[in-house]
Order: sequence, then structure tokens, then C-alpha cells
Amino acid sequence: MWEIDADVLESISLGAGILGTGGGGNPYVAKVWARGELERGARFQILDPTEVSDDAWIVGSGGIGAPTVSVEKLRRGDEEYRALRTLEGHLGVRFDGVVPMEVGGGNSIRPIIAAAQAGIPTVDADGMGRAFPELQMVTFFIYGVPPCPAAIADDKGEEAVFTAAPSPQRLERMARVLTIEMGGTAGMAFAAMRGDELKRTAIPRTLSVARVVGEAVRAARARNADAVDALLAATGGSLLLAGKIVDVERRTGGGFARGTLTLAGSGPYGGAMRIDFQNENLIAYADDVPIATVPDLICIVSTDAAEPITTELLRYGQRVSVVGIRCHPLLATPEALAVVGPGAFGYDVAYRPLDPGGPLPWTTLA
Amino acid sequence: MWEIDADVLESISLGAGILGTGGGGNPYVAKVWARGELERGARFQILDPTEVSDDAWIVGSGGIGAPTVSVEKLRRGDEEYRALRTLEGHLGVRFDGVVPMEVGGGNSIRPIIAAAQAGIPTVDADGMGRAFPELQMVTFFIYGVPPCPAAIADDKGEEAVFTAAPSPQRLERMARVLTIEMGGTAGMAFAAMRGDELKRTAIPRTLSVARVVGEAVRAARARNADAVDALLAATGGSLLLAGKIVDVERRTGGGFARGTLTLAGSGPYGGAMRIDFQNENLIAYADDVPIATVPDLICIVSTDAAEPITTELLRYGQRVSVVGIRCHPLLATPEALAVVGPGAFGYDVAYRPLDPGGPLPWTTLA
Repeated sequence: MWEIDADVLESISLGAGILGTGGGGNPYVAKVWARGELERGARFQILDPTEVSDDAWIVGSGGIGAPTVSVEKLRRGDEEYRALRTLEGHLGVRFDGVVPMEVGGGNSIRPIIAAAQAGIPTVDADGMGRAFPELQMVTFFIYGVPPCPAAIADDKGEEAVFTAAPSPQRLERMARVLTIEMGGTAGMAFAAMRGDELKRTAIPRTLSVARVVGEAVRAARARNADAVDALLAATGGSLLLAGKIVDVERRTGGGFARGTLTLAGSGPYGGAMRIDFQNENLIAYADDVPIATVPDLICIVSTDAAEPITTELLRYGQRVSVVGIRCHPLLATPEALAVVGPGAFGYDVAYRPLDPGGPLPWTTLA
Repeated sequence: MWEIDADVLESISLGAGILGTGGGGNPYVAKVWARGELERGARFQILDPTEVSDDAWIVGSGGIGAPTVSVEKLRRGDEEYRALRTLEGHLGVRFDGVVPMEVGGGNSIRPIIAAAQAGIPTVDADGMGRAFPELQMVTFFIYGVPPCPAAIADDKGEEAVFTAAPSPQRLERMARVLTIEMGGTAGMAFAAMRGDELKRTAIPRTLSVARVVGEAVRAARARNADAVDALLAATGGSLLLAGKIVDVERRTGGGFARGTLTLAGSGPYGGAMRIDFQNENLIAYADDVPIATVPDLICIVSTDAAEPITTELLRYGQRVSVVGIRCHPLLATPEALAVVGPGAFGYDVAYRPLDPGGPLPWTTLA
């Protein structure tokens, strides 16, 4: 068990922003809100997966909706918490802990707040080991936790429980249309599971990974060292390109922020790169050849400070570094690639694992 | 307690088609399905409201979605039943009876089937005393039954429970978007209430009204008497116009079948009439003066056989009679008119109660 104070919050928020690979929602609003909770006396207690008993009840948690909305529309502040209580009421159990849906952007922070509001700890783990745009892409569902029941709550006091769905994909669709009707963002509680299922399906110690990554970048900034180098060392990532954004093409379709980014600079694959994104960065091409593919992490950070740049904030002229990080092994199995590989996003491209540049954080913290 | 056999089903189906005022969904598919259930041994038991004990658990039931979809897309056949079971599971109670959402079209039959599937009776009552397009327009909600919890189930095995909504209007919106995602039709269970609440809020004996109206029209047809005269006598209605449809203007907006019908013929208000509809017939004008207004019933039937014509089947050249029926008093109170009066449908027109042509069925069966 460890605790998140204001300083650790800063590190996790930065690290989760980087691991969000452009998505997961802007972490700024969630961070400011979490800081307020700490000032009002909240305690953010983090439980190592080994500390979770096999028969404990753990619930997945996170926000659903368009990141653009969650930045502009203030939340009520208890959406994830009320979704959790709604699911408890439906199941007739009390949860012993919360596990974040994803360790990406704001969605790594909101579950921690919900857990504190419920007076229970957050497990140091998550369901994506990065960010993905859709609910079915959590390892809990990929490895067999049933999609229902799942609960949703909004800022107007509205709450619902999805009690039966033939697949996690259908849960995603139903939750998505209700979220839109609810105003574009909502909180969810889902994948209620016992401790042994959590330990089998979750990606372990990803809050610690985010913390270590954030601390490394912050330390480098403090001593005026190269922040991108520090990021590479902390993540075992490789620098794919350092350069400038020369074009951003955006199209909005199916409720997602899709687009293509063109970069010019230098790197091991030459001086030009193209990156396709759908909320998150999905595929990086050099000379039309895919060199990094989802579910591997393609992180775009500012070259001067390794500050993560979410996809909606990408713009012409930004000086950025593109860092590739080999994903956690749980995302690279055949059953996972069917849900989170390039094909799941509509690409006729095979997953091509990145060569790690150094020891992966998943391994060093395992 | 009485039972619906194949002959009574025929009468109720016809009567409910007429009372549906153009909406409630085409009763044909539901009738054929109910006939099949009877042939397979189902028993449709009907309980008079006075036979419902004050502490019995009663649940509102009906289909939600576009009538056009429900005619073209076959249902799984247990949507309302599974919604009922889902709501029971959430509440932790067993329902003792079902009450139809509306006595209009197919939605007067589906709850009876669901009740038979659950092995419980249907109460001879409903929440509209006619058909209306939206969930908040049931007397249960108008007179204070809370909007949540309510359950929905579709043909793919999907089920959800709405556990909190600030108003019945918001329940309607959430259920509507989920219905669209579910493929355009679904079954609902809502307004779970005790027997005493049912007796306070429901419109009593409307299945009996539908039966009496249907029997009267069928008897007239059988003896080659004037079926419209028989309809007028059975409903206490007044003939507003007999003539021909000379124009139908349709526009689809906000998920409703809206439009305006123009008629030429003869009647107490002259030879020309215009009727605005939104799924149901809402306002009849003679010389631009409203002569019949929602929630009073404006029923369009064929002149030769008093066969009800639902709004989506209205077409140029049909010879029709327009019958106005004074609504049940529970729909004409200030709190009801706020939800089901002309203003609730966007009209700047006051409710103008029709003079009954004869004793109203609500009164004779009360």
C-alpha cells in the first residue's frame, strides 16, 4: 500500500499523459480536481496487486465520452463514484477496490478519486496499459470478464445499469449512445470481478509505471537535462523521429477524432513520418511502411520538455519527438490483437512489434 | 377475473386500434402473435382493478420504438417479458400483475402476452386511455409514480435498467436513444407500483372499453348495419366529418411521423377539415379553428367498416369518418394537460373539450 500526495500526483499525471499515446483525455482537469480533493483531506491509497485477496470485489472505473467535451464541460465530480455505487446496488455487494480502465490521461486519475470518495483503495494496475478509445479494449473483457452488469452515471443525476449484452462491443455501443444523450461525458463502473480474476486479467503496476516515467521526466527537467532522453530511459522506448509537425489532417467520424499527422525531421527511419490517429496514435509510417503499430505505444511529446501532446492539440509547427514503446505482453496475444491490433481499427496491417530500446517498464516493475 | 380467448382478442385488437387515434403501433402483428400464443396454450387472464390488492406489485409494460419498424422487423417475442424479469431482478421483487402502457394498437396486446409468459394476470386498465408517442405521457408518471427504475430489453438479448432520472421526460430520452441503438424497437417494464398506486393513477377498465368498442363494430358489420354508427354509440363519440382524404403531407422529424391531413366531405363543422398528427392524431381544424384537441381522441376509421387507419397508412382518396371522443377525466386535469395537452406537442392552442355525443365508455364502465 502506498499513497499519492500532490507531488506523486504530478508525476503520475505526466506519466499517464505520455502513456496515453495521444488519448485518454486531457489529464489537466482531472489533475486539478484531484489536487483539490487532496487539499480537502482525501487520501488516495494504492494497493499492489499482490495485496489484493483472491475473493476481494474489484470494479473497473473510468470516464466515457469525447475528450474534447470533457475539457470544455465541467463535470459534477462524482460520476465515477455514483456509477460504482449504482453497480454495487444492482449486484448487492460492496467493492473492496477500484481498478482504472486505462492508464492514460485523465482516466488514470478519475478512478482514484472515485475510490477515495468510496473510502476504498485503487489497485496499481489497469485494463489497457495505455489508452484506447473503446470499452471492449480492456484486458478484463479480452480475458473473459463478462461485459455485464456495467453502470453509467452522468452530471444530471442520471444513472443506468446495462444488465445483459452479447459482447463487450455491444456494451460499448449502448454506453456510447447513452453517453451522447447524457451530454457527451459520463462515468462508468464495469467488469466487477474477484481479486483472482483481476490478477489474471489486469496489466499490473501501471500507476507505478506512470509515476516512474513522470518522475524521470520531471527530474531531467529540474536539472536541465534532456527530458526526451530521460523518457526513453524510463520506458525502454526508442526515438522514432525528432522533428516538426508539417501537416495535420483531421476528420471526425463515428464519434472519434481521426486524422493523419505528417512530420519532418530525423531519425532511424529517415526524415519523414506519417502517423494515423483515432483519438490515440495508431500507426507510424516511414515511406509508407508501418514502423510502429497499435497496440505498441506511439507517444508524441514536445522535444524541449517531453510534454505529452494529445491528438486534439496537435498543430502545425510543433517541435516534437515521437517515441515508440513496446506494449505489455498481455496486449500482444492473438486474442488481444483481435480486439486492439491494427485490424480492429480497420487497418489491413499486421502488428509489427517494436524492438525495445531498453528494458521495458512492464518488465522492470513486474 | 376474465379471460381473453381468440374471439375476445379480435374485439380488443379492433377496439384498441380505434382508441389508438392513429398510433400505438399497428395491432395486426401483435394480434397474430397473441393468437399463436393462445394456440400454444397460453392463458390471458384479466384482473379488474378492484381485484388488485393494495400491496400487490404491478408493473407497466409496452413496446417502445417506431411503429414503422415494428411492422417490418419481426420481434424475438419476449422483449416485454424479459424487461419485466430484468426489473424484477433489479428490485428484488416478483410482480403480481402487469398493466399496459397504453390501450392503443399493438401496445395493448404485448403486455398481455408478457403477463402470460410470466404467469401473472393483466390489469384491466392502462396509462393513457388511448395512445401517445412518449413514455412520460402515462398517467402513472403524471400522478407521481417515480420514473425509475425502468427496464428495457431487445431482440438481441440486450437488457438495461435505468436507475435514476430527474424526470419521466429524461427517462423517455434515454430509453429512446437506447431503443434506436437496439435496432428501433424494444420492450419496456416501468412504473413498478403497489396496487393502491395503480388504482390511484391508472385509467381503469380500458381493455373492457376496447373490447366493448370492438364487439359493437364487429356486431354491426356482421348484420350489415352501419359500423360507424355502432362505433359512435359504443364510445359516446361524435362524428366530426365523413368524407374523403384529399391530401396527406408528411414530414419526419425528431423520430416521429408528423404530418397534416386534409379532408373533404360533410359534417357538423362544414365540409372541410385539417388534422395535424405526430404518430397520433392531435388537432382537428375546421376553417383553421380547432374543433378537437389532444388529449381528446380523434379517430380516423374507414366509413364502410369503421376499420381504424393508423397515421402511417393514411393516403389520398380513402373514404373515412373522423370520430371525436372525449378523453378520460384523468387526462384533462391541469397536471395532465401540461404533459399531454396541445402545448406539450408544441401547439399554441388551448385544450377544448369535445361535447360528448353520448355516454362515454369511461363512465359507463366505471
